[in-house]
Amino acid sequence: MMRRATRADLPAIVALLADDTLGAGREDASLPLNAAYLSAFEAIERDENQFLAVAEQDGALLGCLHLTFLPGISRLGAWRGQVESVRVAAAARGSGLGRRMLEWAAETARARGCTLVQLTTDKTRPEAHRFYESLGYQPTHIGYKLPL
Amino acid sequence: MMRRATRADLPAIVALLADDTLGAGREDASLPLNAAYLSAFEAIERDENQFLAVAEQDGALLGCLHLTFLPGISRLGAWRGQVESVRVAAAARGSGLGRRMLEWAAETARARGCTLVQLTTDKTRPEAHRFYESLGYQPTHIGYKLPL
Repeated sequence: MMRRATRADLPAIVALLADDTLGAGREDASLPLNAAYLSAFEAIERDENQFLAVAEQDGALLGCLHLTFLPGISRLGAWRGQVESVRVAAAARGSGLGRRMLEWAAETARARGCTLVQLTTDKTRPEAHRFYESLGYQPTHIGYKLPL
Repeated sequence: MMRRATRADLPAIVALLADDTLGAGREDASLPLNAAYLSAFEAIERDENQFLAVAEQDGALLGCLHLTFLPGISRLGAWRGQVESVRVAAAARGSGLGRRMLEWAAETARARGCTLVQLTTDKTRPEAHRFYESLGYQPTHIGYKLPL
C-alpha cells in the first residue's frame, strides 16, 4: 500500500500538504502546479537516499511521507532515517493509516541499515506529539529552525 | 578556515565527537579507527548533498560540523540545510568559533539555494540552546527519535 511517489502523484501530494493548519499558509496547491514543486520532485527522484512515499488505497492517494536516509559520523557512523512531510487525508484520519505509514518508514529505514529514525514536529501539534509518543518516539530534542 | 573534511581528518573528528558529555558514551575514538567510521565517511564523500566540514586554525582541527542539503516538497519545494554533529574543541570553546561555524553553515546553505537551516539539540544541553537562540534559531519544534 505504501509505494514510491511518481510525478503524477505530485498534485495530490501538494493538496495533502496544503490541507493542514500550518501547510495552508505555506503551500500553493493551485493547478497547473507551481514549477518549484516539480524541481523539488526531480531532485528527490535522482537521489538514492530520498524516498518520497504515498499511501494508496482503492486508487485513492490517502497519505504521504518523505523518508531520507542520512549517513553520519556520529554514533559510530550510524545511518539515520529521517521523516518529513507526513500527512494523512482528512477522510482517512483516525483509521490507523498514519500508524501503518510510520511503521513502514521504520521498517524501510531498518532495511537500509539505519539504527534510528528521527523527525521533528511543530510544538503547536499536540495530537502529533501523542501519536509519535504512542509509536515509541522519544521527545529528547528541541528542533530549531533559522529562516534564511 | 572552514573546509571539507578529508579521510585524514577522521580520527580528529571522532575524537571531537567523543569529547562530549553525550558523545563519550556513544563513540569509539580508539585507534586504529573503528571501520564503521570509514564506511560512514565514504558514504558522505560520495553524496553531493553532504558536506562534512572542519574548522582548522594554525594546522589544528578545532571544530567539526556536518551540513546536509535536503530537497523536499513542503514549503513550495524548499531545500533545507540541516546541521548535525557540531563540536568545538575544548581549547577553543568561548572563542567565537562555534558562532563562525554556524554562520558559515547558513551562508553555505543559502548559496546552495536553501531557504532555511534546521537542527536539533538534546534537551539536556542548555548552553547549546542559548547559543542557537543567540544566532536567531527558533525553537519551534520537538525533536523525536526512535531507536531501531
